[in-house]
Amino acid sequence: MNNPLLVEVLRGGLVESRHRGAVAMVDADGATVLAVGDVARPIFPRSAVKPLQALPLVEQGAADRYGLGNEQLALACASHSGEPAHVEGVVRMLAKAGLDASALACGAHWPISQHAAFALACSGGAPSALHNNCSGKHAGFLCVACATGAEHAGYWQPQHPVQREVRAVLEDLSGAVLSDERRAVDGCSVPTWAIPLENLATAFAKFGNGQGLAPLRARAAERLRSACAEKPWYVAGTGRFCTEVMQLLGPRVLVKTGAEGMFCGALPELGFGVAIKCDDGAGRAAEAIMAAVIARFVALEDVQRATLARFVGPVLRNWNGIETGALRISGLLSDALRR
Amino acid sequence: MNNPLLVEVLRGGLVESRHRGAVAMVDADGATVLAVGDVARPIFPRSAVKPLQALPLVEQGAADRYGLGNEQLALACASHSGEPAHVEGVVRMLAKAGLDASALACGAHWPISQHAAFALACSGGAPSALHNNCSGKHAGFLCVACATGAEHAGYWQPQHPVQREVRAVLEDLSGAVLSDERRAVDGCSVPTWAIPLENLATAFAKFGNGQGLAPLRARAAERLRSACAEKPWYVAGTGRFCTEVMQLLGPRVLVKTGAEGMFCGALPELGFGVAIKCDDGAGRAAEAIMAAVIARFVALEDVQRATLARFVGPVLRNWNGIETGALRISGLLSDALRR
Repeated sequence: MNNPLLVEVLRGGLVESRHRGAVAMVDADGATVLAVGDVARPIFPRSAVKPLQALPLVEQGAADRYGLGNEQLALACASHSGEPAHVEGVVRMLAKAGLDASALACGAHWPISQHAAFALACSGGAPSALHNNCSGKHAGFLCVACATGAEHAGYWQPQHPVQREVRAVLEDLSGAVLSDERRAVDGCSVPTWAIPLENLATAFAKFGNGQGLAPLRARAAERLRSACAEKPWYVAGTGRFCTEVMQLLGPRVLVKTGAEGMFCGALPELGFGVAIKCDDGAGRAAEAIMAAVIARFVALEDVQRATLARFVGPVLRNWNGIETGALRISGLLSDALRR
Repeated sequence: MNNPLLVEVLRGGLVESRHRGAVAMVDADGATVLAVGDVARPIFPRSAVKPLQALPLVEQGAADRYGLGNEQLALACASHSGEPAHVEGVVRMLAKAGLDASALACGAHWPISQHAAFALACSGGAPSALHNNCSGKHAGFLCVACATGAEHAGYWQPQHPVQREVRAVLEDLSGAVLSDERRAVDGCSVPTWAIPLENLATAFAKFGNGQGLAPLRARAAERLRSACAEKPWYVAGTGRFCTEVMQLLGPRVLVKTGAEGMFCGALPELGFGVAIKCDDGAGRAAEAIMAAVIARFVALEDVQRATLARFVGPVLRNWNGIETGALRISGLLSDALRR
């Protein structure tokens, strides 16, 4: 099945580039609210499922044992920008489990934040695993290992108890079978399993209001949602989409980006979960689609609607500030959202 | 017309992302060698036509008058990385015309080269128009204006004599009519006209061997090709695709990238021109396609073939160096190239 055109990139009056993809939205009973494109094809969710991967951190008692606050729980759900307070938060998480950066297996990369990268370079520093956007998730995995008495070395491998538990959680929430044939290695070396968008949307619907989850799991989801809503800067960083949208709308939405054009989210007050994949891996298109979905389904005040509109159809400007074009949602997606 | 799948991005054993697009290749007589996808749809070539935009610099005598060498002619064709020698070369070009960086209208951005960006930031500097990847092209436009006695202010505007001449050159080589309805503003503020890929391929076939061009224009093309072949580092920069491929193959290929998934090239010994557009704007896919086209049509030594293969099907690794997947040319494009 060919996925349809969802986002167009205009230059002047012409379409310059085109993004195809698929969108699934389900309600808390698992009924389809929106299905555009092939929502049954298994897709690697990448970092878009970090909030789900963080459930064991709360469920298994590690968050309580180590006294993790909202900032640290948000970091466990984050693809952070490597800004100083992100790095410091991860250092404190690790210290609570008696560990330091040497325990992290996510690999090193320069901070996503240009400002933070320049500051690090100019101080003579080099990027460490702490600056990796996944370091909060990894610190969370390490806390689970330590709190449950598992050997923390190898915590990232598929057969380690932490990853086996993450897999069980993802299967419970999504209803998908995470077979080894659907497993690959993520950018930070942990397993990633290909899951259909309709199942990912189901997982986020459950994560969003707890319906259908065991009480312990439902409470853990609520605590993580609350942490992200309270501290959205820790889920991404300065100027990033996830941070700005959650700052704007608080606990009414939870959104999480992933590499290669993935986006997942929950609209708890509606009981809806949503999962988006842009076929070609473009984050700019996935963001515009997520913004359009929120604008369609969440009741917004005028100022919120205006702010969100800048993500739905951002104006593109060149280095001189001259308007060169814009992104726009395709007619097909607009029509699907109107129904 | 829906363009076909041209490049797949694998993670583990599954396809994670997909790139569609179109490829046109023509010979020096304008006959189609390869046409995959919609090669008649007008497409903004962006920076992929910089070598053509540089023709007036040679034709109108500015290159001789100011004694521009191969490095500076290559810079006029470049999307450079803003490394120190790129910036110094542009400063010298401008000085020859009695100008400095204040005359550049391309706007400022941080160097594409991370190393150069860090060095600039750590020296307390800020990016100027000199660091803009288009500053060499703009310095070339300014040289044309000054050498021909035109007012250099406003050299970037569509009605300025320099841009009118660039438009005439593009029409001559491509055979396309560059109407105002097909004009938009490029990232560096000069006009960009949407041109069908089949016409862009024709333009590069002519640029590659001069066939069908007036003698003055054919000699100018030869001089620019020679400059890029001699000094490919100035056309892009350290580690960049255009530089590495031209270093590998010398005057046998000229390749030039453009924003939003564009690529153009000439294979002068065959008389072929090629133009590629990845629908979604992905440079990674356009590079793989260009490498595959070269590997198919250019006779290569084993070591050249092996080097090029790393661009046709690059292995993807994560921050720990673990192999996570690869890019691969689609079956459809492979079949089209075999015919």
